[in-house]
Amino acid sequence: MTQEKQNILFIMADQLRADYLGCNGHPSIRTPNIDALAARGVNFTRAYCQAPVCGPSRMSFYTGRYAISHGASYNNVPLRVDERTIGDYLRPEGYRVALVGKTHMRRDDEGMQRLGIDPDSSRGVLVSECGFEPFERDDGLHPDQSADPDLPYNRYLRSKGYAGPNPWHAHANSAQGENGEVLSGWHMRHCYLPARVREEDSETAYTTNRAMDFIEAAGEQPWCLHLSYIKPHWPYMAPAPYHAMYGRDDMLPAVRSEQEREQPHPVHEAFMKHPESLEFSRVEVRERVIPAYMGLITQLDDHVGRLMAFLEERGQLENTLVVFTSDHGDYLGDHWLGEKELFHEPSARIPMIVVDPSPPADATRGTASDRLVEAIDLVPTFVDVAGGESSDCDHVLEGHSLQPLLHGAAPTDWRTHAFSEADYAWRPARKELGLAPDEARAFMVTDGRWKYIHYEQHRPQLFDLREDPHELEDLAARAAYQETCRAMEEALTNWSLERKTRVTVSNQRVAAATGSAHQRGYLFGVW
Amino acid sequence: MTQEKQNILFIMADQLRADYLGCNGHPSIRTPNIDALAARGVNFTRAYCQAPVCGPSRMSFYTGRYAISHGASYNNVPLRVDERTIGDYLRPEGYRVALVGKTHMRRDDEGMQRLGIDPDSSRGVLVSECGFEPFERDDGLHPDQSADPDLPYNRYLRSKGYAGPNPWHAHANSAQGENGEVLSGWHMRHCYLPARVREEDSETAYTTNRAMDFIEAAGEQPWCLHLSYIKPHWPYMAPAPYHAMYGRDDMLPAVRSEQEREQPHPVHEAFMKHPESLEFSRVEVRERVIPAYMGLITQLDDHVGRLMAFLEERGQLENTLVVFTSDHGDYLGDHWLGEKELFHEPSARIPMIVVDPSPPADATRGTASDRLVEAIDLVPTFVDVAGGESSDCDHVLEGHSLQPLLHGAAPTDWRTHAFSEADYAWRPARKELGLAPDEARAFMVTDGRWKYIHYEQHRPQLFDLREDPHELEDLAARAAYQETCRAMEEALTNWSLERKTRVTVSNQRVAAATGSAHQRGYLFGVW
Repeated sequence: MTQEKQNILFIMADQLRADYLGCNGHPSIRTPNIDALAARGVNFTRAYCQAPVCGPSRMSFYTGRYAISHGASYNNVPLRVDERTIGDYLRPEGYRVALVGKTHMRRDDEGMQRLGIDPDSSRGVLVSECGFEPFERDDGLHPDQSADPDLPYNRYLRSKGYAGPNPWHAHANSAQGENGEVLSGWHMRHCYLPARVREEDSETAYTTNRAMDFIEAAGEQPWCLHLSYIKPHWPYMAPAPYHAMYGRDDMLPAVRSEQEREQPHPVHEAFMKHPESLEFSRVEVRERVIPAYMGLITQLDDHVGRLMAFLEERGQLENTLVVFTSDHGDYLGDHWLGEKELFHEPSARIPMIVVDPSPPADATRGTASDRLVEAIDLVPTFVDVAGGESSDCDHVLEGHSLQPLLHGAAPTDWRTHAFSEADYAWRPARKELGLAPDEARAFMVTDGRWKYIHYEQHRPQLFDLREDPHELEDLAARAAYQETCRAMEEALTNWSLERKTRVTVSNQRVAAATGSAHQRGYLFGVW
Repeated sequence: MTQEKQNILFIMADQLRADYLGCNGHPSIRTPNIDALAARGVNFTRAYCQAPVCGPSRMSFYTGRYAISHGASYNNVPLRVDERTIGDYLRPEGYRVALVGKTHMRRDDEGMQRLGIDPDSSRGVLVSECGFEPFERDDGLHPDQSADPDLPYNRYLRSKGYAGPNPWHAHANSAQGENGEVLSGWHMRHCYLPARVREEDSETAYTTNRAMDFIEAAGEQPWCLHLSYIKPHWPYMAPAPYHAMYGRDDMLPAVRSEQEREQPHPVHEAFMKHPESLEFSRVEVRERVIPAYMGLITQLDDHVGRLMAFLEERGQLENTLVVFTSDHGDYLGDHWLGEKELFHEPSARIPMIVVDPSPPADATRGTASDRLVEAIDLVPTFVDVAGGESSDCDHVLEGHSLQPLLHGAAPTDWRTHAFSEADYAWRPARKELGLAPDEARAFMVTDGRWKYIHYEQHRPQLFDLREDPHELEDLAARAAYQETCRAMEEALTNWSLERKTRVTVSNQRVAAATGSAHQRGYLFGVW
């Protein structure tokens, strides 16, 4: 390859807990290929998503901005039309920026109409797709009542003989009963059965194939491919043999205490009443779901291995930055909760492995870093990799380039706090708590030792991650911790007041213009 | 008139201190026509601008959003292209929404280019002009080196016999020396002389004429006219006879103390070193500028009277909501400062008089209200007046409709705090303090009694507006006031975390969708 610029392979799993990887200490899961990425790169063990739910987390990944800044605070909240996204930064550097898989991007139809942007124009498509060329867009959830009749994956499945209007559901995400009946994967009780799809036709395999198609098509132009798997996100249906690869003995024990139920924080309590939390609080549910969840992860790992081998064959492994991450985790019954959305580590912490094949990164190859890292750090990292200057856009981008860390620098001004946000207005918890749609916000701040959560309309929480890594003891109400709470609240205040909202003028331009009014003829205050 | 909807006449003066009006207690200034507005409406005596500098203050007036939300944090920072503005709210209600005068709007060229919006298209013009049809756009500052050769006011002046390339400067904003030489109004030492323009050709007169032209042209369609005077903003040049209407005996004494200079807050200190502050700290400067400033106000008042008579003749007085306000104040030497930008009352407090001619407002006619009112309250007020529902847009608009107050309601949930912001990155003070371009932010919060100022990178300030209405004693460092400081900081934190950034989905739509995922087929957490 004569190409000078590194490619960027930005792999995201969906709903993958950071601790469900071998390289992150899981005692029984097999993820040798992802572990191999960690061995070739840096494993950031304290990485947080900016919101523990798909849509806002991803909009932060793709914009390089906190959820409160980009505004798409929940799933299906359109990203406002003039938010800059990953493509706006990388295309000027000569990159082809494409998507295979999920983004959860919702188009801002009203904004486009107000500004007269044709969604079918080439510019309109990019604005609609969060800056990605949609080589294959598939958000991975296709209920029968709203499945796109032209869904490419469904067309593929039909071409392989899987019949019906929505083989995504009837085959890839359902099992088969003893009498040949379809057992929907939407129901977790079926998760111990294999999906009605051959492994090579499953979503994870298909998505990997499409990534290879893209890489072949891209040729010599430098590219950034966002390979965004839907699994191990529910429906928790794994194809054989992965459905039966793990059993109850392979599971991590549920992290939860009776005290959490007896003296709950009101917001935690409201979430514990959600159906998914009640279900995941049952041993039977965990024992049926978690092995399938683990099987889906190992399947994904196998395809990561297949993709790495593909790159190696093509001679591209040494010229491709690889990121492996996830949009958020999954409670899986920890803290008496299902799903995600709140800020305990199983939900808010994410895997973040970055393989920089360039020689300057040899210094850190195979190391782990406990620096506080955020999802928003990827866009500035990519800008640096692409040969741009992330500092040129530091009036918009709110993350920090990871490149110095990858290259072995020990910056003294690295962030001291990481943040994550929730907007649970769409969840029953909001109604349970009697909150208005704009009152259901919560903000997490951690300095690595302490994790503090500010709830609108409710008292805060404080956990000591060092002494209580399972976050079972809320210290916020105790007198001895008031100073700690205050310090965390102050960090939150400074953060929120320092959000980057002056997005139309760069810091460089401000610096150049400072004090220039008189030179430009505006002679105020002159005698 | 058969028209059912009220017109909206939204008058703004520029740099007019709230206390330089007769109805607000100034002992010597003559503002009988503005006072008459107060007698016909409600005089809000505790109104604050959202930023004590033209551009960001106006962007808040026109968007109904705080500066940290709209992002145009200083003069000439373009308003991002998809911020909704006053026209987006009123045009759907059938209004013609037009501008005569100044907005300080800077077009977001990069945003328009990125989204492919032609600035010359009808939509592009509205986006460029902050939602206003630019019936007459004139920002009122035209240095010779950058004066638009086609400036309509200059064309007007030339048609009236005022010669030269830039009669705005050479005539309307300059005086004449004893030997016929032009004495520039950019130099304050000339402010005691009359402008080289007949009063009826001065900016304030011309702007009023253009407003009348618009009103005549508008016909029967309901309209919202933003009549936005440049004066009494510098250059402080008043035409005869207004230049000589006031003398030093008419001036309010300078509000400042030696202690302010001896133990200054670092940011205040840096501003005191600005040239305009050094000049306005001199008695000679105040004595030459303030009488001219007062003359300009009385001139403006006379034209407000002329305009009201015009409306009355046309039978439109009873069908037109009139607002009289200003974008910010002017220190005029108070606190050893010139100009504006910081948060003392002379700078951050604004006049705010609202005349609602409808019968429900009879209950409050001629009253004063000390409710905390903000510039951002006008857009929701206008939406209500126009027959819309401001609550439909309360996911974007951050102000509160004044209509309940105008109609004599006594809401128990009115705001408890008002806020104002500064971004002084462009000022020499930033360099003096050694701050980066994105570190020069400050935030004011007041509950009416206390005024607290949070400075990025510097200690806060606290003033007791009741015991120390002149804001001469900073209490923030005193032990006895730590609880007050903490309470104000908490109010600021809540405010900043509650900013409306989820602008693409209304609260109603959130409420309707809450808990509906299962109905839509997304069966997560189901056994």
